[in-house]
Order: sequence, then C-alpha cells, then structure tokens
Amino acid sequence: MGLSGELFVGGGRVRTAETFRAVEASSGEYLEPPFDVAGAAIVDQACELAWSAFQPFRELGAERRARFLELIAEQIMGLGDALLHRAAAESGLPLARLTGERARTANQLRLFAGELGRGGWWRIRVDPAQPERLPQPRPDLRQYQVPLGPVAVFGASNFPLAFSVAGGDTASALAAGCPVIVKGHPAHPGTSELIAQAIVAAAEMSGMPAGVFSLLNGPSNELGAALVRHPYIRAVGFTGSRAGGLALMQIARERAEPIPVYAEMSSINPVVLLPAALAADAPRLAKEFVESVTLGTGQFCTNPGFLLALESPALDRFIAAAADALKAVTPTAMLTGAIQKAYVSRVERLLQHPRVSVIGRGNESASARCGRAALFCADAATFLQHAEISEEVFGPSSVVIRCANEAQLFEVLQQLEGQLTASLHFVEQDENLVRALLPLLERTVGRVIANGWPTGVEVAHAMVHGGPFPATSDGRSTSVGTLAIERFLRPVCYQNFPDSLLPQPLRTGAFILHPHRYDGEYRTGA
Amino acid sequence: MGLSGELFVGGGRVRTAETFRAVEASSGEYLEPPFDVAGAAIVDQACELAWSAFQPFRELGAERRARFLELIAEQIMGLGDALLHRAAAESGLPLARLTGERARTANQLRLFAGELGRGGWWRIRVDPAQPERLPQPRPDLRQYQVPLGPVAVFGASNFPLAFSVAGGDTASALAAGCPVIVKGHPAHPGTSELIAQAIVAAAEMSGMPAGVFSLLNGPSNELGAALVRHPYIRAVGFTGSRAGGLALMQIARERAEPIPVYAEMSSINPVVLLPAALAADAPRLAKEFVESVTLGTGQFCTNPGFLLALESPALDRFIAAAADALKAVTPTAMLTGAIQKAYVSRVERLLQHPRVSVIGRGNESASARCGRAALFCADAATFLQHAEISEEVFGPSSVVIRCANEAQLFEVLQQLEGQLTASLHFVEQDENLVRALLPLLERTVGRVIANGWPTGVEVAHAMVHGGPFPATSDGRSTSVGTLAIERFLRPVCYQNFPDSLLPQPLRTGAFILHPHRYDGEYRTGA
Repeated sequence: MGLSGELFVGGGRVRTAETFRAVEASSGEYLEPPFDVAGAAIVDQACELAWSAFQPFRELGAERRARFLELIAEQIMGLGDALLHRAAAESGLPLARLTGERARTANQLRLFAGELGRGGWWRIRVDPAQPERLPQPRPDLRQYQVPLGPVAVFGASNFPLAFSVAGGDTASALAAGCPVIVKGHPAHPGTSELIAQAIVAAAEMSGMPAGVFSLLNGPSNELGAALVRHPYIRAVGFTGSRAGGLALMQIARERAEPIPVYAEMSSINPVVLLPAALAADAPRLAKEFVESVTLGTGQFCTNPGFLLALESPALDRFIAAAADALKAVTPTAMLTGAIQKAYVSRVERLLQHPRVSVIGRGNESASARCGRAALFCADAATFLQHAEISEEVFGPSSVVIRCANEAQLFEVLQQLEGQLTASLHFVEQDENLVRALLPLLERTVGRVIANGWPTGVEVAHAMVHGGPFPATSDGRSTSVGTLAIERFLRPVCYQNFPDSLLPQPLRTGAFILHPHRYDGEYRTGA
Repeated sequence: MGLSGELFVGGGRVRTAETFRAVEASSGEYLEPPFDVAGAAIVDQACELAWSAFQPFRELGAERRARFLELIAEQIMGLGDALLHRAAAESGLPLARLTGERARTANQLRLFAGELGRGGWWRIRVDPAQPERLPQPRPDLRQYQVPLGPVAVFGASNFPLAFSVAGGDTASALAAGCPVIVKGHPAHPGTSELIAQAIVAAAEMSGMPAGVFSLLNGPSNELGAALVRHPYIRAVGFTGSRAGGLALMQIARERAEPIPVYAEMSSINPVVLLPAALAADAPRLAKEFVESVTLGTGQFCTNPGFLLALESPALDRFIAAAADALKAVTPTAMLTGAIQKAYVSRVERLLQHPRVSVIGRGNESASARCGRAALFCADAATFLQHAEISEEVFGPSSVVIRCANEAQLFEVLQQLEGQLTASLHFVEQDENLVRALLPLLERTVGRVIANGWPTGVEVAHAMVHGGPFPATSDGRSTSVGTLAIERFLRPVCYQNFPDSLLPQPLRTGAFILHPHRYDGEYRTGA
C-alpha cells in the first residue's frame, strides 16, 4: 500500500516525464514521493477508456454497480491509518476530523449502493397502451432514466476524502452508471493515490471494465480544462472556488456539444439571530457561532461568513461573548499555502476597511501557515453600499451585521446572492418574523436551518447541498444526498416495444418490483 | 371576443406606437387588425409584474393553480370556432388538425391540473430526526421542490395552440408556480391574442395576481433577447430553429446570473427499416412513411427526415412505392413565407447535390406559398462524407440512406447528433439486430419507437419529447408530458423546523397525504 506517484488510467498505471510534489500543510516541506503529471495524451487515453467502458459498465446492471460501491467503501476502510496520516499531512486537518470524514465517505458510497438496490432512481413511468382510444389508440409508453456518459470529477482541497477522489460526485456518478475520471486536487495527491488504489482494487474484485475509473494528477489548470473540453466527457462535478467554477462553466459552454457543469462554488451562509432568541441566550449563541466559524479552520463551504441581528443590548452582549470565545481559539494550519495567503489578504482588506470594525481575533499563529481567526462587525447601511464586505473569506472569519430595524434586515437579505444555506435562531416570540423571512430565504438558498449552524452537512435523502447561482452553477441540483444521482441521468422513452426488447427494468415483470408511476398513479413496487 | 391588437401586460392591456400585421398563410395577404409591438419599457413592466406576482401566486397553493389551469382549458374551448378559423388563416393548417390540436392543448392543461392534485410533483423527502444517534444526532430534514421564478416562453410557429401561448411550456411553468411571460410568435398574433384573452379571463375568475401572465408581441428578435436578459426571468422555454435556440442559450449564458434554457431545436428523427420487416411489407411501410413525411406539410419537430435501410430488392420496392405514394400528395400552404423560402432553398440544395438523387416529388404547387414534397436518396458512404445531407429540412422532405451492410448502418447511426426520436420497423427475425442497435440509439435520442412513425407525440406521464444536444439545449428534460414540470423547479431542504413554520406540504399532517420518501422508503401517500 505504498505510494508510487503514478497516474491511474483506466485500471493501468502510467508514468510520465514530469512530476510535482505534495507539501506538508503544517510545515510547508515537500513530501515524498514525486507524482506524475498528466498531459494531453493521457487525458485522451483516459477519456477513450472511459467511453469504451460506458456501455459495458451499464450492462453489468445496478446490482453489480452497488457491489462495486460497497467494495470501494470496504477497500477505503481497509487502507487503515496510512490513509488518515497521509491525509493529515497533506491537508493539515486533525486525525479526529479525518476519521469522521472517512466514515462519512464510506457511508456515502454505501448509501448510493442502497439507493441502487431500491430501483427508485430509475424513476420508471409506464403508460399502458389504450388500443381502443379514439380518435387514435394510445401507444404503450415506458420511461426510465439513463446515464449521461463519462463524468469529470474535480477533487476539492477542503474535504480530501468526502469531496475528493471517492467523494459524493464520484459515488453518485458511478451509481448512475457513468465512468468517472477524477482530476485529483494537487494539494493531496498521496491521499488521492491511496483512494485510487482502493477504487481500482474494488473495480477488479467486482469485474468492472477497465475504463470505469481514472485518476489524473497535475498542478496546472490546463489539465482540468482539457478534461472538460474532451468530447467523451458528458458532465462535470466540481467543488471549489468561484473563479474555478466559472472557468469550467465557460469551457463547457464553448464545446461543440455543451454539457452540464455541477460546480459548487461560493457561499457566505447567512445566519440570522432573531431578537427574542438573542435576548434569551446571547452567550450560548456566541460560543456556538465561534465554534462554527472556526471549525476545521473555517474551511467549509457552509462556513457562516455572515451574521445578522437587530441592534440591541443583547447584540452587544453577543459580540462581547464572541470576542471572548475567540480568544481561546488556537490557530491551525490551513489546507495550502495559497489558501492561507488568500485568507490573510482578505482579512487584511477587512481590517483596513474604514467602515468595518474588528470584534476580536483568535490567538496569534505559531506558524506562518496557520489561519488566525477573525470576527468583524459592520452596520447594515455599510453592507448595502459595500458589496466587497459580502465576498466569501475562505477561512475562520465572519462579519456581524448590525441592522437598525427589521426593514434593514429584509433589505440586506434581499440583496444577497444565491447561498447554500441560511440559518435562523429563534424562540416562540420570534415566529412571526421567521414566517415573514422564510419566503425570501427559500428563494435564495438550498437549505434553511432552524436553531442550528450551517456547518455539518448530513448525507441523507432529504439533504440539499446546493442553491441558486453563484452558490452553485445549477441550483436545480444537490451535490450531497441521494438526489445527487439525478445530476448524471436523463429520461428516455420506449414506445410500443415488446417486453423481450425493452431494457430490463422496463419489462412488465420487472418494473412492478420498483417504485414507479403507472398511468400517472404512484406505486411503491412489490 | 374580437381582436384588439393590444399587448397583455399582467392582466392590463397596453397600446404602443408601433404595429405589425399577421399574414394569411395561404394568400400572403395582410390580416386585420394591426398588432402592437412591445419595446424595452414594456418588457421591464411585464417582468416587474411577474416578479411581484411570483410570491402571491405560490401562496395561493397548488389547488388554486390547478383550478386556474382548468379554467384556461375551459376558456380556450369557449372561444369556439373563432379560434380555429383565425389559427387556420394565420398558420395555413387545416381545421381538422387545429381542432385536434385544440383538444390536445386543453387536455394538456388538465393533465397538469391533475398532476397538481396528486402532490407527487413536490417530490417530498423526509428524513426524521435521530436524536440518539452517535457521534452526533441527526437533524430532521424535509425536502420539497420550489418554483424557479418568472419564465419566458417563446411561442412556436408550427403548433399555434399546443406549443404556443397556452402550450406545454406555459402549462408546466404555471403548474410549477412560475408566472409566465409569453413572447408570441409573429406568425400568429391573432391566435395568440385569443388565447391570451382566455388566460386572462381564467386568471380573473380564479383570483390570480395580475402579473401571473403577460403576452408580448413583436416581429424582431430583440424583444425575445431583452426578455431572456431580464434579471427577473429565471428560466426560458423555447421551441423553434437551431439558430434561434442557440442564440437564446448564448444570451442566457451572458447574464450575471445564468439561467436554464429549455430549447427544443432541430432533429432529423432517423427511421430504420430492418431487413425482414422491409422484405415483408415494403409497400405498406412506403405508404406510411410518405404519410408521416408529409403530415402537416412536414412541419413537425418529429418529422422523419432520414430513413435508413440495407441495400436489397425490397428497398428498391419501398423506394418505388414511396415515389408512387408521393405523387398523390397535394401541396398545402406552409406556415410562413420565410419557412416556405427556406424549405425551397434546402430542397434545391439537395436537388443540386451531385451524390443525392431524387426518388420522387409531390404534386406541383398551385401556389407559391405551398411546400411541394420531396424524397431523396443517397448511399451511406455519401452521407458519412457530406454532413450537409443530414441537416434538418423543415418541411415535407426526407432522405433515404442506402446502407451496403450492417456495419455501415451502425457507422451512420454512430455519427448522428442528438435526436428527439429514432424509429425502428422490425419483425421477429430482425430482433437480434434491434437488440444491437438499441444501446446506440438510447445514447442518442429521447424516444425510441417500435414499428411506428415519429410524428404524433402523446401527452402523457411517460412521454419524453427531448433528447441530447442539438435536439434540445438540455437533454435532461422533456417539453411534453408531466415530467416537463421539473424544468421549472429546484429542491429546498428545511432542517429542524417546527411544524408550524414549515411550508404547508412539508408539515407532518400534510406530507403523509402525498407521494413521498420517508427515510428513503417510497410511500404513495394516504
């Protein structure tokens, strides 16, 4: 289970002339071994293998795919501590967090395996023939969902397991029946290789076609661009920066055949403290807020970058308590040197802003690679005039916005761009205001949270980790939870085919076993 | 029920300084009255009214929306013969066809009303809280689908009722809870106004907010572009030419906030005659083929522009019979002068093509505004080298491709772009070949038809009227059938909200009544 630094191209391993190295997050030192860099020829090779694998992979059927996903989970767990230690070295994230993230990654693969077993993902619809209907007979119509084709997945730096090589995009694309080519994040190539080993072993054990999975590494943006441009790639999954997501959207549009890009990009995840809740419990809310802002050194898509409350003595108490809580926060290494530099410069911009004041800072950093927490404060009028205050600061920083009155609170929320989440803290006396806010928030976000914090995304059936642009490139989707499989499917209708020629799930003996609609009626299946 | 020529802006009627006129399809003469042209200020006004109507329209609830759709159907039927006569004059389509199209349009509205009554369109998912779960409790998560916002709908020329002002895009968008602004097709402004009268009357009778519907007319592309650019427009439905669809996609991408465009564009709808079926029944197939090609003067999205068969004496018999059948076809007026001119020039190009031969022509046209049918023939090698042969000819024309062998048949189908449909004619002896063709066709089209012709699109639950690009801009959708509602919806998740604050359909007493998933399990509702 050592690291070879090779690329994984459709089951085979490939060496190239050029290499790059991973960096230890905490020290900035290079880690062994060097990793091979994929060039244009290898992109072609991986895409051709993925395309050749597409039909055979589908034909193996949902049950075999489910087994494949379960084996990936098993193989990942089998990597043991070596995986956790490598991921910790490359990402700077603590072992406890990575242990949890590993469990989440394995459970996510198993959740999609279970989803395949249920058959509801086919979304079968059968409208039986009506040969006697006038003026024309109605044909027999049967609809199900088919996979789009090979998917390019971009590993994210901030979840080296759960949003990377075998993360949610890969799990949902493979579940849908789409071969996957991962463009590994250059911040954790060793972690990526270990996971790729697990996937390739699982593919072999379950007899999958070779091209079902590839891992391509490289430090340049050109590698990802070449992948998204390739005609055999039919969809893209990405989690990362707004600039990165917008660039991929642009490349995808310029293709001869445009393809869907599911990019989860930027979100400042507003939190609203309603007056009675704030008055009742300012110190607890402050403590929880600081915990959420600084969790994982603030490197979450759902980090609460933005908190709103009405001017009041309780808000002053909240701010004082938050400043206190922050003092106890010890800075930890950020994911990469580039992320840390960007964080410092964004925080610096807020520190220099004439209309923004500092509530407090975390402990000073022991190392130049750490992210020192920061809380800021501004009034709503300032926010409304200075769009730059609402830009995402990726790291342990947040801005408290003081609203003079409810009208101002609404005005600020109305100006917000699309978000992954919005959180409301309220007690019974606040409910009328909550009721007024909800329609506005529902139009703006993918998930609304009552009396909780946005960090922590449950992998479940009802989860939405998505939201209107620019939170994501396509607000009609989620990248977490079982609904994510639908990103990689499209409907096909069969008209008047005899049972023997229909795809297996649409045959008369088969569709009745799965959840389906029969002449519009909902049926759960036998 | 006369025609005023006014614009319908959110329930009110508006006059402008500029006008244009409809043209009688059969004669080319101008029809009364002149119609007002919408400019930029009116686009703004309609979009602002639509945006203001969005929340109130949603809050009226699904039952009221269903009633609204039913009333539209009722009001359209109530327009009586005046509607049919005006549509016939403007489109050149015969009354019998328009009578059928009217029934289809009304039934489509009623189908979506019924869909709202079932509640399955919310796609409710509930994952109940697990307060005892370790390491963390699981929150209560409830997901449903919410409307995107105001939708711009572009009326199509070839279905002045079923794909126009109150057609499938409007019906599905209104059903989803999205206000609609229709950009009426300039070929049938009188028909559009009559339908708009019906919608506005239905909106008044059911107490809908004023901005729920507008009809804007004008002969220029700039009107549509301004609509698609407007920040309050959140999705676009379009049926028309490839150039038109691509232009709207481009405009939508250049917005600050990109929006989904559902454009149904071009398709040549391949038909494959398998050897044994062809040998058994060449004359009948030829007759049906000619009927399908010339139905509605060939002006269907699903017109079979392209027929493939293996070289054989039976194919010669088929071609001879098709030529014979064609002689009996009397040409009829095309929808517009521009369509007729484009048709003549495309046919002329095929007539001049050195590698394409003419199988036969329909009767000569009595009028310069008619479309004279044409059947062509080419060998597969020519098709593979000359992409221009596969370009859509909008009108009663089709090309028979002679394939030397099965390998060539596969090669031609592999080169095809995305299509709305593919049709296979086969008998039992052909089934192995059908089985080999289906995976390829499933990757390329939205609907596969056994022993039938592509014209005739059933409005049903299992229908897919869509397909990979360039058949549509978004192969993950359909513009016909109840699945079309999903184009205008996106998921939202509520986390840990008390019942009293949840949207009505997600409350504990309510969701159990509708089809939903409970902790992943499929339930049909009480």
